[in-house]
Amino acid sequence: MPSPQPFAGVLVPALTPFTPAGEPDAGRFVAFCRWLLDEGADGLAIFGTTSEANSMSAAERMTLLDRLIASGIPAAKLMPGTGACSITEAATLIRHAVAHGCGGVLMLPPFYYKGMTEQGIYDFISAVIDRVGSAALRMYLYHIPPQTMIPFGVELVGRLIKAYPDTIVGLKDSSGDWANTKALLDAYPGFGIFPGSEVFLLDGLRNGGVGCITASGNVNVPGIRKVYENWKTPQADQLQADITLVRMTIQKYPMVPALKRIVAHFHGDPDWAAVRPPMERLSDAQSASLLADLAKIGYSLGERRREAAE
Amino acid sequence: MPSPQPFAGVLVPALTPFTPAGEPDAGRFVAFCRWLLDEGADGLAIFGTTSEANSMSAAERMTLLDRLIASGIPAAKLMPGTGACSITEAATLIRHAVAHGCGGVLMLPPFYYKGMTEQGIYDFISAVIDRVGSAALRMYLYHIPPQTMIPFGVELVGRLIKAYPDTIVGLKDSSGDWANTKALLDAYPGFGIFPGSEVFLLDGLRNGGVGCITASGNVNVPGIRKVYENWKTPQADQLQADITLVRMTIQKYPMVPALKRIVAHFHGDPDWAAVRPPMERLSDAQSASLLADLAKIGYSLGERRREAAE
Repeated sequence: MPSPQPFAGVLVPALTPFTPAGEPDAGRFVAFCRWLLDEGADGLAIFGTTSEANSMSAAERMTLLDRLIASGIPAAKLMPGTGACSITEAATLIRHAVAHGCGGVLMLPPFYYKGMTEQGIYDFISAVIDRVGSAALRMYLYHIPPQTMIPFGVELVGRLIKAYPDTIVGLKDSSGDWANTKALLDAYPGFGIFPGSEVFLLDGLRNGGVGCITASGNVNVPGIRKVYENWKTPQADQLQADITLVRMTIQKYPMVPALKRIVAHFHGDPDWAAVRPPMERLSDAQSASLLADLAKIGYSLGERRREAAE
Repeated sequence: MPSPQPFAGVLVPALTPFTPAGEPDAGRFVAFCRWLLDEGADGLAIFGTTSEANSMSAAERMTLLDRLIASGIPAAKLMPGTGACSITEAATLIRHAVAHGCGGVLMLPPFYYKGMTEQGIYDFISAVIDRVGSAALRMYLYHIPPQTMIPFGVELVGRLIKAYPDTIVGLKDSSGDWANTKALLDAYPGFGIFPGSEVFLLDGLRNGGVGCITASGNVNVPGIRKVYENWKTPQADQLQADITLVRMTIQKYPMVPALKRIVAHFHGDPDWAAVRPPMERLSDAQSASLLADLAKIGYSLGERRREAAE
């Protein structure tokens, strides 16, 4: 039997703000994470793909985590991404997260080399867990083949659960392929499976999923929470259609720059739009078009927040 | 006009030995690098793909470089790989290499995110160079789309040369696509272009290339040097055919584990076969088959070494 789940509900891979000089902006990051929790996020999957985590050094990531913890954000709500191409760097990041008492970590496969065997990926994860050597570690596998090209296939996931039943407690499926999510849900009941997009939230919950970890959570926690709270009610399908529409509207644009642009606009803080290369911020034309598209569907971050608070 | 070339000839992306416990083995690494130079290597592109560089943390790479330098290996012969997904880590690795006086560095594009724009890649390289801020830096771009999926396209290379003519002095083309190498050679005469395989060494030299940086250099420096030294002679095509045969024989197997197995065999040091996950060492059956294939074509590391010394 898998371990009890440390996380469920709506988890947000929090965006990472950068200063005009391109440095991680710890002050804005802390404020933004606190705001996401106030909005109703059940947890923060900081340092994910949406967070531009791999555009930061290990030291930069650990400093930001230190600052979050120092600010009083509960470690149990945090699931930092600890992916790295090397066993050594991954183990360093995980040890740091475990020492802070983080609820779990989100673990990429080693993503530089392509065409590696399942045994090679298994050995990598196994070596990392052995090197960390902590009974407190709760690891979520991060399946995101569009970026890594290295999958956590259904069979490999089963081998890892069997070998590390108290450590490997779940998976984020960012394949964008519902058939894959469904196959995992069917194969491993009780395993903590989070679709990587709220588009699959309702389908996931109806099939044994525990929530979602989704980029657009950065700008739509209240809407996504409504689906999570009401998934057994007759309104569920309409609520799901509402959040799917928001997601689809945003993802017509490059996702991370678009989300940062939305935050910049609705938080009244233009510096928020900054990204680190190789990402590029939206052009003025793209920004105007995105905001117009969102207005057309009646989206407003502030209004949604007020509505949720009513 | 491009800067004078700090490197030419046969450069070897030196294999990295690991101890049975999986740690980088600095003693064996120093001895192996010295041996490669004794064999006739013109330079060592340490910390490349073949070196499993991305299976090491930045700290592990810097420690190995420190040890090479401390051992008396000339920094001018070294072109360390300094690729990283983040501007900050790449800049740290480059500053360290420049401080040691390395002849150049080999620079990957940021390889986590896929589908980035040329402008995004340009901004990344530009930000790294600006952050390093050293007139002593000589950078070679590392084009290896089979692993990165992020190309340094011909046009982008031209923009970078134009913006940083004294810094960006060459490129390693590991696309495996001669048409791409040829297009670069034709477009940028005087730019230091190294095919990433000795299979294209002679074609490269005949078209303005300056040598090659090749994995199989780890086990065949003397053979590859012969082509480099005799490329204008009537024997050139036969010498090229000889080294192509060796390469083709080895690359029927997973390249890095195969090269390590060859080193283990011919140096009489079984521990050399160790790789870090996600790579896997060759099975006993694969090893036997590889060594038999090499015997069939008359390859022997020791004999070639003696022959070269005559």
